[in-house]
Amino acid sequence: MREDSDVAADYNEIFRLLTSGKPDNIQKLVDETHPADVLQAVQDIGDEDYRYLLVLPDDYLADVIDEAEDDDKYEILKVIDPGRIGSVLNRMSVDEIADLIRELEDDNKDAVVKSLLRGRTKTDVTKLLKYDEETAGGIMTTQFIAIYASNTVMRALNYLKTEVNAETSWYLYVVDKVTYKLMGVVSLRDLVMAPFDTLISDIMNDNVISVRTDLDQEAVARLFTKYGYAALPVVDENGRMVGIVTVDDVIDVINEEATEDIHRMGGIDKEEKIDGSVKDAVRSRLPWLVVNLATAILASSVIAKFNGTISQIVALSAVMTIISGMGGNAGTQSLTIVVRALSLNEIEKENGLRILGKEIVTGLINGLVIGALVSIIALFYDFNPWFGLISGVAMILNMLAAALAGYLIPIILEKVHVDPAIASSVFVTTVTDCLGFFFLLGLATIAMPHLR
Amino acid sequence: MREDSDVAADYNEIFRLLTSGKPDNIQKLVDETHPADVLQAVQDIGDEDYRYLLVLPDDYLADVIDEAEDDDKYEILKVIDPGRIGSVLNRMSVDEIADLIRELEDDNKDAVVKSLLRGRTKTDVTKLLKYDEETAGGIMTTQFIAIYASNTVMRALNYLKTEVNAETSWYLYVVDKVTYKLMGVVSLRDLVMAPFDTLISDIMNDNVISVRTDLDQEAVARLFTKYGYAALPVVDENGRMVGIVTVDDVIDVINEEATEDIHRMGGIDKEEKIDGSVKDAVRSRLPWLVVNLATAILASSVIAKFNGTISQIVALSAVMTIISGMGGNAGTQSLTIVVRALSLNEIEKENGLRILGKEIVTGLINGLVIGALVSIIALFYDFNPWFGLISGVAMILNMLAAALAGYLIPIILEKVHVDPAIASSVFVTTVTDCLGFFFLLGLATIAMPHLR
Repeated sequence: MREDSDVAADYNEIFRLLTSGKPDNIQKLVDETHPADVLQAVQDIGDEDYRYLLVLPDDYLADVIDEAEDDDKYEILKVIDPGRIGSVLNRMSVDEIADLIRELEDDNKDAVVKSLLRGRTKTDVTKLLKYDEETAGGIMTTQFIAIYASNTVMRALNYLKTEVNAETSWYLYVVDKVTYKLMGVVSLRDLVMAPFDTLISDIMNDNVISVRTDLDQEAVARLFTKYGYAALPVVDENGRMVGIVTVDDVIDVINEEATEDIHRMGGIDKEEKIDGSVKDAVRSRLPWLVVNLATAILASSVIAKFNGTISQIVALSAVMTIISGMGGNAGTQSLTIVVRALSLNEIEKENGLRILGKEIVTGLINGLVIGALVSIIALFYDFNPWFGLISGVAMILNMLAAALAGYLIPIILEKVHVDPAIASSVFVTTVTDCLGFFFLLGLATIAMPHLR
Repeated sequence: MREDSDVAADYNEIFRLLTSGKPDNIQKLVDETHPADVLQAVQDIGDEDYRYLLVLPDDYLADVIDEAEDDDKYEILKVIDPGRIGSVLNRMSVDEIADLIRELEDDNKDAVVKSLLRGRTKTDVTKLLKYDEETAGGIMTTQFIAIYASNTVMRALNYLKTEVNAETSWYLYVVDKVTYKLMGVVSLRDLVMAPFDTLISDIMNDNVISVRTDLDQEAVARLFTKYGYAALPVVDENGRMVGIVTVDDVIDVINEEATEDIHRMGGIDKEEKIDGSVKDAVRSRLPWLVVNLATAILASSVIAKFNGTISQIVALSAVMTIISGMGGNAGTQSLTIVVRALSLNEIEKENGLRILGKEIVTGLINGLVIGALVSIIALFYDFNPWFGLISGVAMILNMLAAALAGYLIPIILEKVHVDPAIASSVFVTTVTDCLGFFFLLGLATIAMPHLR
């Protein structure tokens, strides 16, 4: 199979054209190169020195900034001459301007909106900034095409020619003339196929699926996943059409949310960057390590309670790490599938009990197999059948505990509105560590007469 | 913020219409309800008894099957009367038919293609089945719109009317008349905006980004993420246009790949289903537990080597679980960010060394903080300054080992073409367990005169 390197643009060549100082070469870039590739050339070859971008014309530079991540947008803007910023900014997509402004300090936000933005851009950005960043309102754009049901196809096509800034023209949204309520949708294809004098009301689909501005962005992403649309209209609480969410922004949301889940499950901050600073990494990880330290102390205090038992049968200290570790692994398996399923909304009242049953039986079967192996291994450390027996039984009990904890803890956390991705693993491994030590050392204490 | 439940379709109502036995109600569903919602109603309310779907007309039933997951597609097909299957099948999207056939036993594959498919569907599905499932060829559809550069806009628009099966008409692809090589692309919008007698060659964009059939689906997804297109053309090794990948399929790939990474990092099979059988769950998890058991034995054998030391200072057995566990947590943090970054192609030669440096310094700083805390905690188990000192030093050393292992192990695995998501955690925790025990018990053995 072919990999990325086979399809990557020639960044060295793009960077050469950009830095050649020849207007012809710049024009060639503008005509033939995707802004995302020019951005990447500067990031990979130009060592992220965004001053290289300043030779580009304003509208193309605006496109490049549109493509950049939110924090990089700000870095690019900083190298632009103050007299030029306004011109570039007003050529960007309004949703990208809003994302950029969200990155600024509070003091700067107002200043940028008031002094740099103009006309409809200013109005639209001001509207967008009112919405929570992680909702449909926060990821939508106001640059959509709205028409009336009483229009003819001809009139709609002519209107289309004037709306050059629309993010997408695949769908035209039909709104009420007075209330601006969303009434239906017409695909550009259906519009093109219809005779010029057809009324929009005759070809529009009035079963239009829309989302409200305050819908969580993950729920928006799930709607796109389910229906496969390229854009969805966004309405306010009165059903008035206020924007569209386009699929390219949804892809970013899906990638972002997956990264967040993976990071949280691994115990790091959802937004930690691979090439971030040491300070950010310490800040992201140290608090989590301290929380884990507290639970490690809990587990070790269980061991300390049984010091007397261990000092009589030292082989227990070698076996107990197997019992706790294997329980932790099995618990992690259960919580992994449960946490991911919660993320994708796959667990409901109807199937919850069945899944719990499956987890318990799976834990029992895996426990019997691993328990049998552990009891054999234990005999290598202390050749006493009783030692093998209690090791195996402790292992089976801990595997069952792991299955229960791995299922129930994420479900309970979700119920009490704590993100299961972030907190499940610490609770589950606390349970499997503490119970693992307790089962083994407790059984050993009871069976001591047979062990010595 | 609003959540899914606020936007979910009324599945009870859909199910009522579907099972009412009234033709009017079925027509209402066909006219007004998205096939994905009818499917979900049967899955949620109808307990996945797909016979409820049989009242739907063939073309709508085909749309419902298009929406189902690959294994559910097969389940639906099984309840359809043999005499009807052909008619339904030929109304499905060709890429979905190919996905369905991939689910069948080898013997059945040929039979379905030969006896049930007809005409162009048969030809196209046969072509699609030749490609590896996880490549551009495997996720593309052949239902795209191809035009010639010498056509006029008028002719292209007329051609559009005949191509009712195309998956998307947002882009029209310009191919060479003789070689069928991809020459350019025209968006439907540009087509609509141009006068009827304009030549396609005058309005087409000849800098079209395409992918080859054998490009890995993850690389395809990254191109969509980068460029934000709704579809990309697919060409064969001679540059001939053979299909398009649409963004809805790419969203499925992105979700699927994220689930696979999360599952692998948690030690379960990439395709284990939350509502699967006990048999599948055991098969997915037990092999991984056995691998982990082998490494747990390794770690416990390190402890066993120091039995003499532990029997003299029993408090070591309580502290050693903290040292190994905290090392495991820190190692998991490092490997999590590295594995996700590898998945997103964010680590390159240019930034590799800098990231390693960041990991080591972060490990050192976190090690100093956690090490200091551990040395204080140790004093509660054995009030001897030497005991606190060696506990703290062992902790710092293990945190450094965790940082190195958490970075280097995924990178090395990637280099030798082993999926870092699946194997990193077992190697990293083996390192932190074994070294954690070794550092603490080794230092204790050396310092024994001061500890007793």
